[in-house]
Amino acid sequence: MPKPGVFDLVNKAKWEAWNSLGSLPKETARQNYVDLVSSLSPSAEASSQGKHEADEKAQKSKDIVVTSEDGITKIVLNRPTKKNALTFEMYQDIILALKNASTDNSAITVFTGTGDYYCSGNDLTNFTSAAGGMEEAASKGAVVLREFVNSFIDFPKPLVAVVNGPAVGIAVTLLGLFDAVYASDKATFHTPFSHLGQSPEACSSYTFPKIMGSAKATEMLLFGKKLTAREAWAQGLVSEVFPDSTFEKEVWTRLKGYAKLPPNSMRISKELIRNNEKEKLHAVNAEECTTLKAKWLSEECINAIMNFVSRKAKL
Amino acid sequence: MPKPGVFDLVNKAKWEAWNSLGSLPKETARQNYVDLVSSLSPSAEASSQGKHEADEKAQKSKDIVVTSEDGITKIVLNRPTKKNALTFEMYQDIILALKNASTDNSAITVFTGTGDYYCSGNDLTNFTSAAGGMEEAASKGAVVLREFVNSFIDFPKPLVAVVNGPAVGIAVTLLGLFDAVYASDKATFHTPFSHLGQSPEACSSYTFPKIMGSAKATEMLLFGKKLTAREAWAQGLVSEVFPDSTFEKEVWTRLKGYAKLPPNSMRISKELIRNNEKEKLHAVNAEECTTLKAKWLSEECINAIMNFVSRKAKL
Amino acid sequence: MPKPGVFDLVNKAKWEAWNSLGSLPKETARQNYVDLVSSLSPSAEASSQGKHEADEKAQKSKDIVVTSEDGITKIVLNRPTKKNALTFEMYQDIILALKNASTDNSAITVFTGTGDYYCSGNDLTNFTSAAGGMEEAASKGAVVLREFVNSFIDFPKPLVAVVNGPAVGIAVTLLGLFDAVYASDKATFHTPFSHLGQSPEACSSYTFPKIMGSAKATEMLLFGKKLTAREAWAQGLVSEVFPDSTFEKEVWTRLKGYAKLPPNSMRISKELIRNNEKEKLHAVNAEECTTLKAKWLSEECINAIMNFVSRKAKL
Repeated sequence: MPKPGVFDLVNKAKWEAWNSLGSLPKETARQNYVDLVSSLSPSAEASSQGKHEADEKAQKSKDIVVTSEDGITKIVLNRPTKKNALTFEMYQDIILALKNASTDNSAITVFTGTGDYYCSGNDLTNFTSAAGGMEEAASKGAVVLREFVNSFIDFPKPLVAVVNGPAVGIAVTLLGLFDAVYASDKATFHTPFSHLGQSPEACSSYTFPKIMGSAKATEMLLFGKKLTAREAWAQGLVSEVFPDSTFEKEVWTRLKGYAKLPPNSMRISKELIRNNEKEKLHAVNAEECTTLKAKWLSEECINAIMNFVSRKAKL
Repeated sequence: MPKPGVFDLVNKAKWEAWNSLGSLPKETARQNYVDLVSSLSPSAEASSQGKHEADEKAQKSKDIVVTSEDGITKIVLNRPTKKNALTFEMYQDIILALKNASTDNSAITVFTGTGDYYCSGNDLTNFTSAAGGMEEAASKGAVVLREFVNSFIDFPKPLVAVVNGPAVGIAVTLLGLFDAVYASDKATFHTPFSHLGQSPEACSSYTFPKIMGSAKATEMLLFGKKLTAREAWAQGLVSEVFPDSTFEKEVWTRLKGYAKLPPNSMRISKELIRNNEKEKLHAVNAEECTTLKAKWLSEECINAIMNFVSRKAKL
Repeated sequence: MPKPGVFDLVNKAKWEAWNSLGSLPKETARQNYVDLVSSLSPSAEASSQGKHEADEKAQKSKDIVVTSEDGITKIVLNRPTKKNALTFEMYQDIILALKNASTDNSAITVFTGTGDYYCSGNDLTNFTSAAGGMEEAASKGAVVLREFVNSFIDFPKPLVAVVNGPAVGIAVTLLGLFDAVYASDKATFHTPFSHLGQSPEACSSYTFPKIMGSAKATEMLLFGKKLTAREAWAQGLVSEVFPDSTFEKEVWTRLKGYAKLPPNSMRISKELIRNNEKEKLHAVNAEECTTLKAKWLSEECINAIMNFVSRKAKL
């Protein structure tokens, strides 16, 4: 088997070491690697495809379900068999859903998940056919990630997360851009970036230290400490925690009440708050995406993911 | 009765709808509305009158009582029969009191309230004779509000709030500009801006997210969630909570001790802290006042207040 | 005895009052004063001496012990008989140790103390032979303090404090520049700047309000409130508190785990976070040092320290 061009970006020594991995068939290892790295961002192909969809204002998958009722637009992550992991279609569908929600007649917009999980972060299996070289994929991925996060930074109405279960990776970091976060006591919050050779995204390098102070933000973002719902509440990431048995009932009753408040007042108040740091958030998002792009092509990231693949394959 | 000129700013449809309000005598409804909207800010007349007072360094009302003893200048909101709601004279008197306290020989300055309430926010009854049109009143009101908040931003000595009971509206938002906040366990903290079609003031659109994170700041500023003293403490808005039975004794004993510390050190340390964001605070204050001025003239605000008037009138 | 030139900077009245201090022999009082004031910063002589050491990459004292093992560089404050108070040599040794740790092959760097204390802040006894006038000493002291704090602002790897016991003054304020802070439940946190006529340093005028809100930061920085470990944790200054009996075991087990994470990811994630405010931190540090320099030469500071000396001498 020839040394694949996709790895021109990592040094040969690494490739050789990797080649010698005994525990997995070589082709399986390679494929797993491509799958995983590619899955860290929407692929090039996915991106352009997604844009096309957005133009048509029609979403492709049923993995994101959008409904609007009682003044609330509800965006549901609906892929429970995969713990609501985000595929590239879902990224595009969410960008589209937020665009539509920003101008519909609802007062507030709510994210939640179907099933036991809120969202397990980036999907790790749906990019088995990443087109193009890694550098191209990383470049395009960074572009789409930036657009995705921008759609949260710029969203003009109150944005609420109803965290029904565990949240991982970007599903956690995005919470710093929400206006309120309600969590079931079954929810957990986990950002294992260093474990995967990655770095923080969704402006969390700025929002997390602001929300919880550097001593607690670093434990999450650098050391990958997993928080319980109550810990996340104590650190200010979560507005309020509810017993899982009454979670849905209590939260939706409350949200329906909020949705009756004068919508322009809420929009204008949010604008006042957000404008204090919108420019900063866009700059941070750009910097984080640039950093991640470089990281995705680094040996360390490749190693970390290979270790992850190997361990997973052995289970 | 002719359609009053004061409402040229709202569309006619609104006026018609309002005209048809059956539950209140028309003139009563109109007067209530003028009273309420005007009361949201000191009127034009009040403003110039107040300036005159300030020049004479003499306060008009007895609703603000200022004393100085033991190195502490104490500014007492003294209108207990009206829950210490702030009249336009009180705004002017407070600006004057802070101006005087900044150069007197006290080490620290303390705000507190007489009776059960700390302060119920803007007074809703004393502007029954608002002069001029609404636009003029809103313009002048925004000017005085900005001057009032600036006097807190620029105050050079340690500023302490002794929150003896419920605090509402601007009495809550201003706390983000205090250096320490001691609360009785009977105190509550309530900012129902959206409910009245308003938006946050006193730099709270900046200070609240900084102090407690966006997820908790939004619940207060957009959704009008009322906090207990303990909740306000957990969110960092309050320095410490005391049982009401020992509140006064414990707090004043402590403050008398603090007042004996080297005053220049405290002033210089406060200057160091405040200078890190003074420019930002002035910009935020200006923006918030501009936003509120526009809000006061909006249909939504008028509707919200009309609803409030109607409900209140029916009680 | 002639009026010493070192006091030309304070008014004569002060000197006379001081001269009349009955409880201490004059020469002892003078010496105590010089000792204390000088000890607030590394002296001129110490500074140049320290620089020389740094050039040679060799530390002078054994009061700072640096070891590297398991991916962790450990910087130990090792002067337990003096509660690990910082001498000028220790400031220099720490600057050097951080310089070396930034490029060694460790993943994270940890500070801790030997014995019961973490660190009691500036040493108050080792500057009995301060050379030059006070103004010169203050100028040079401010230069070294700024360099010392800059070495924390610019440190590129995860920096962890293992706070084994009480921390005072600069040992507390520096924590705002750490990435994680683990504390024994025997630790306390005390910053009595106003009591000594001083002002905050180590960027705490910026980091503390950001971490814990103004209402709690001021209690520490202006009023000198001492915090328990649990209070410091609730306010976000401390990442986690451990029972003293299992503190060392639990913390080091955890840190050894963290040290195995991909080092570049952690470094790059820290850089993302730090870059959001590095420029601001340098500006704040410069301003704080300028302020402290002026403060050290103020009557109020001299008075406060004299009172401290007198009280201590009488004990």
